[in-house]
Order: sequence, then structure tokens, then C-alpha cells
Amino acid sequence: MCPCGFALLFYTIPAVSVQFHIEATSGPARAGRLITAHGEIETPVFMPVGTLASVKGVPQDTLEELGVQILLGNTYHLYLRPGVETVRKLGGLHRFMAWPRAILTDSGGFQVFSLNELRKLTEEGVTFRSHLDGSSHFFSPESAMQAQIGLGADIIMAFDECTEYPADPARVRASMELTLRWAARSKKYFEDHKHETPWEPNLGQTQSLFGIVQGSMDLALRKESAERTIEIGFPGYAIGGLSVGEPRARTREVVEATVEHLPADRPRYLMGVGTPEEIAAYAGLGIDMMDCVLPTRAARHGLLFTSEGKVSIKQARYASDSAPLDPNCKCRVCCRYTRAYLRHLYASNEVLAQVLNTIHNLSFYLDTMRAVRHSILLGRGARFS
Amino acid sequence: MCPCGFALLFYTIPAVSVQFHIEATSGPARAGRLITAHGEIETPVFMPVGTLASVKGVPQDTLEELGVQILLGNTYHLYLRPGVETVRKLGGLHRFMAWPRAILTDSGGFQVFSLNELRKLTEEGVTFRSHLDGSSHFFSPESAMQAQIGLGADIIMAFDECTEYPADPARVRASMELTLRWAARSKKYFEDHKHETPWEPNLGQTQSLFGIVQGSMDLALRKESAERTIEIGFPGYAIGGLSVGEPRARTREVVEATVEHLPADRPRYLMGVGTPEEIAAYAGLGIDMMDCVLPTRAARHGLLFTSEGKVSIKQARYASDSAPLDPNCKCRVCCRYTRAYLRHLYASNEVLAQVLNTIHNLSFYLDTMRAVRHSILLGRGARFS
Repeated sequence: MCPCGFALLFYTIPAVSVQFHIEATSGPARAGRLITAHGEIETPVFMPVGTLASVKGVPQDTLEELGVQILLGNTYHLYLRPGVETVRKLGGLHRFMAWPRAILTDSGGFQVFSLNELRKLTEEGVTFRSHLDGSSHFFSPESAMQAQIGLGADIIMAFDECTEYPADPARVRASMELTLRWAARSKKYFEDHKHETPWEPNLGQTQSLFGIVQGSMDLALRKESAERTIEIGFPGYAIGGLSVGEPRARTREVVEATVEHLPADRPRYLMGVGTPEEIAAYAGLGIDMMDCVLPTRAARHGLLFTSEGKVSIKQARYASDSAPLDPNCKCRVCCRYTRAYLRHLYASNEVLAQVLNTIHNLSFYLDTMRAVRHSILLGRGARFS
Repeated sequence: MCPCGFALLFYTIPAVSVQFHIEATSGPARAGRLITAHGEIETPVFMPVGTLASVKGVPQDTLEELGVQILLGNTYHLYLRPGVETVRKLGGLHRFMAWPRAILTDSGGFQVFSLNELRKLTEEGVTFRSHLDGSSHFFSPESAMQAQIGLGADIIMAFDECTEYPADPARVRASMELTLRWAARSKKYFEDHKHETPWEPNLGQTQSLFGIVQGSMDLALRKESAERTIEIGFPGYAIGGLSVGEPRARTREVVEATVEHLPADRPRYLMGVGTPEEIAAYAGLGIDMMDCVLPTRAARHGLLFTSEGKVSIKQARYASDSAPLDPNCKCRVCCRYTRAYLRHLYASNEVLAQVLNTIHNLSFYLDTMRAVRHSILLGRGARFS
């Protein structure tokens, strides 16, 4: 198409998976850069959750202004609505939701396993019923890969079983072994089909499939899961099966014990955490990527994270408070509105409450992670205040 | 306070009410400029409704970007939540909602009369029950003025009775006479207390109280109401009691017949209208200001106004439609998102649907009115396409 030949040049360069460079370390903590087909991500990074191709209530241009570099989408939800084929035909998730930056999708496994009464597990995969209409569906490693390739996120996740907590040792091992077999099947399907993404082929990068380490709270099994997942081989590794009800001290212990078995030159993704203090602490342990519904879900319940601690904006004490929500925050909410106004919006059930609360909480999380990264670059560990 | 004496100078200039200048006319249509203590308003103007100190789902900076020059607040709703005294203590509605541009509040009359079963009318005023908790309240011309002065909008409205439709001739006259007596009482209270707004006194302008013409669909009574309201004397005049269920042709007839009795040099405000076509048509009859919940309420129901007609975005036909909502619209929604995405958000009950739909509909209304104004300035009548 292009007479100068550049397009041809691009076509002849073999497409590569996500690239990861570590720019600085400070103890176990690392400041890195993840390069995807849809932009670079400075790590450690917090990924806001956009379940249904939307971070609830926040327009995409506002997410860009907040400095969001990568969003998380939920395969289970998008598979049900609007459907993978619809998204694929419209050019993939990036074009569908008008988000030009990076996206990661989960495999659908975690959501499917959350359905409890509605699912049936076999070696082949999981049969489940839609929480929307009760219709029956089937996810296998292969179909979960097919769905994620069709959605076209930059980073996709192996189909795993998120072991319930607590579970007895035999159950934990069996679950871990199943996840390992599914990881191998996920990788095989992905390698055979990874060029079927809905993107233009000349971006120079393919999707990347990350493996997931399981093993519940058993440190020996975590080590074994890490080693055998690495043996299968992925460009990045996630730690799954945490934040499932265990005490927070135990989470930290398992993260610490698992990280040491993960390769230093690959990104490490801790799934489903945490509070602002926790994400800073996990970055301090050498985690590069995290996601959590906490900032967005808490915002919808009027729970706001600030430099002075948590604020429950629904409280009557804020009804006449003319101070900004967080005097140390430079977000567009704290620069413009008072606590009294935010309290009024929440108490009056105004939709703007959700919009503004979510913008602030995301801003606080992203600022926290930027401060942590800056601190690592300065060799001061993962500090944020 | 100010050593150079400017502040003193401002204090010595007598504060004046809203100023209105007509810049061009084209037939009965006028392009004007309304100067308030919180900025200038180019007329004809459409005023978005921000019932509870919020245009539902849209942040104030987005309203600024849309070019909103004046917002409408509802006194009845703000009186109940967060309460007039709370707003007054926080510096008035502008500061409370962080909206530096102009605001108009209605008198609460229309909302109170909409309560039907919950109200009791006397010469003195109206006793009504809150739709929130059933608590009993009383609005009189004096207390409605007190509330509006405490809220501190730039333009406030006389306390009137919005005559129900249809009504028999005796009822229409009695209601009109009551509105006239209440207009005189509203003005008296306002003149005695207009310096009690929560603003700084050096803005050079006071609030302005507009009178409201009633008389239902009786053209002779409309004329009488206009003349006698003008006799009381206001810096602007509204036409109330329309859009209450009458046929649209009748609305137009009453507007046309009423406008000719209103002074040419004062702003004319037609309350509670209309569709995009209607607001252009009323501007063509010489109306300067309009407000309506239609663009914002319709947006929440997925009904979108476009240059190609109305779009019900919930329809399955849009599920794979990669076109922008309105190819001729330059708003941030039409420039970024597809119909397929907007349809997905609406079908999935995502809050972002309401946010984006409202932004587009308001943009369409404001663009319509800007086109009408431009057309009037060019001497081509109130055309918008």
C-alpha cells in the first residue's frame, strides 16, 4: 500500500511479544518499562478495572488525563455482553471502547469460579450458567484463549483454576496440577492462533500470554507451581489465588515466597490487590503489576482514599465542610469541589457522586504508584509518602 | 483591604441588576447578551437543568467545555437537599457546586404544584409535603424569595401558580390574579432583601428577579397578565404555564401572542421547552432563554438527538454499528465513540452510558442554539441547519 516501502518493512519484521526492561532496582523492588503494541507502561503499575469495557462512570479521555497506561477487562463479562465476535468484528477491544493504550484481559477463570452454584468442572474445562440469563456456556483453556485473542488485549492470561480458600492439601495440589495442565493447553492454543488478533498486523508486537502461579497458601506448592509454570514458558507471570479471604499477613508471606522463584527479567503480576498501602508494599516485594476493583467499587459506596486516611463521604460531619476532599491531592475533583458538595451528591444519590468519587480514588491509586516508582528510581525502596 | 483603592471604588458603585443588550434582530428573533455577576450569556440561550446542583452525571468542567453559560437549579429540590442554609453558609450555589458561571433558579412553585396530593393552597402560600420523607413545609412568595436569595443564583423567579391544564375560565382568571398578587409580594420581599445574597458585594451586580406571565391558553388573559406583570416591573419576563400537556400548536400560538406584549428591551424566558426544533422555533418568535429537562432526561433513557433525527441507542440495529452517533457532531462523544459502544453501554446498564449520552444531547442543544444565534446575527432568522 505504502509506496515508500515502510509498510513492507514492518511486515517483514517478526512480531514479538511484550518487552520488559528494568530501569532501576531498590532491594527487591523494581522500576521497569513494559512495551506493548499499544504503548509503554511504567511499572510498578496499578491497572484500573474496566469490567464491561468501561471503568464505571469515567470517560476514556478522563482516564487518559489521569495517566492510566493499561486497563483491565474481564473476559467473562465481555464474552456475555457484547460478545467476543461483536468486539472482534469491530476491530477488537481497543477500537470498540476507543482506548488506544494497553489492555490486559483476565481469562474468565476467576469469574467463572466465583459463580459457585452455577458451574461444573471437568478436565476439559468449566460449564457455567450466565449470571444474566442462566444460559449455559463452556470455557476451556482453548476457548478462553480464543475469546481473549478475539478481544485482542495486549496481555492475556492463561486459563487457570483459582483455588478456593481454605482448601485441604490434596485439593490444593490437584487444583495446582490442573492449572499447570491448563497452562500448557493455553500456551499451545495461543501459539497456534496468536496472529488472529483483530489488530492491523504491522504494529510489530503480538499479544502476550502470561502464566499464572497457583498453590494456595502452601509455600512449597507455590515454589513448585512457579518452577513448572516457568518450564512451560511465558513472557510474564502472575500470582493468582490470593486475596480470596486469607489474612493479609499470609498474602504477603505467599507473595514474598513466590516472587523469589520468578525470573527477574519478566514482569510479575499480582492479581486482585489491594489497598493503597498494600499495593506499595507489594511493589516493595518486587511486584510489577496489580489490579483491583477496590478504588472503583469503594468510590461507588462513598469510600474515598486520601493522604489523610479513608473518608466515608456519606457522613453528616462533611455536610458543611468546605475543604477539598484531600488537600494534598491535585486531581480535578480535589482542585474543584468541596467535601460538602461531594457529600451532598452522595446523599442525594446523584450519578455525579460516582463519577467524581471514582476519578479521585483512581487518581489517588495512580499517584501512589507513581510515587512508589519515583522512590524506587531514587533507590529509596517502594515508598509513597 | 486593597491599598490601591479599587475595592473602595467598587463598593461605591451602586449594584445593578442583570443587563441585557440586543445585538441583532431578524424578524421577531433577537441575538442578545445578558450580563450577570457571573459572566455573560449569549442569547438566545438554552439552559441545562441541574436540579440538585448537578447536571446528572456531567462534571462541571465538561459543562464549561460544552460552552454552557448558564445553568438552572431547582429551588424546591435544593431547599430539601442540602437545604438553603447549608448552601448559603458555603457561599451560595455557585461556590457550593463549583460553578463560576451564571445560574438561574426557579421559584419552587412549579415543583410544589406538581406534588398534587401533597399540597394545600391558600392566599398566603402553599403547604406541601416533601416527596422524600413526607415532612410538611410552607412556601410563600416571601419564603421562596428568601430561599432563592440564600441560594444566590444570578436570576431568580417570582413565586407563581402554574395553572393546571385544562382549566375552566374562572379558574384560569383566579389563578392568574393570584400569581399577580404573589408577583407584587415577591418583588417587595426581593427589593427589601436583595443585598443579602451570599456573594461578595463588589461584583457590581445584584441578583435579578424575573416576573412570570400566566393565563393558561386564554390569549386575552395572557395579554392582561403580561401588562399587569410589566406594571409591577421586572428586569426580565418569563412565560410560564406552558408545556403542561397542551398541543404544541397551541403552545406556539400562546407564545406568539404573549411575546408581543413583552417589552423589547428585556430578556424573555420561555419556561420548560422543548425539542431542538421547538427551541429554534421559539427563538424565531423572539424568545431569549429556554430550559428543559428533555435533553438530559432523554439521554438517561437512551434517546439521543442528532442532525439525522432521533436515535434510540438501545436498539439492536446499533449493536455492530461502527459509525459515530452523529457524523455531523463535533462533541467529545461523537469524536471518540461508536454507536456500537454506546449501545453496549446502555444495554449493559453502565453508568458511562448516562454520562456520554447526556454530554452528547447537551452538546446538540447548545450547538443548535449557537447556530440559531449565528443565523440571527446574519439576518437569516432563527435557522439551525
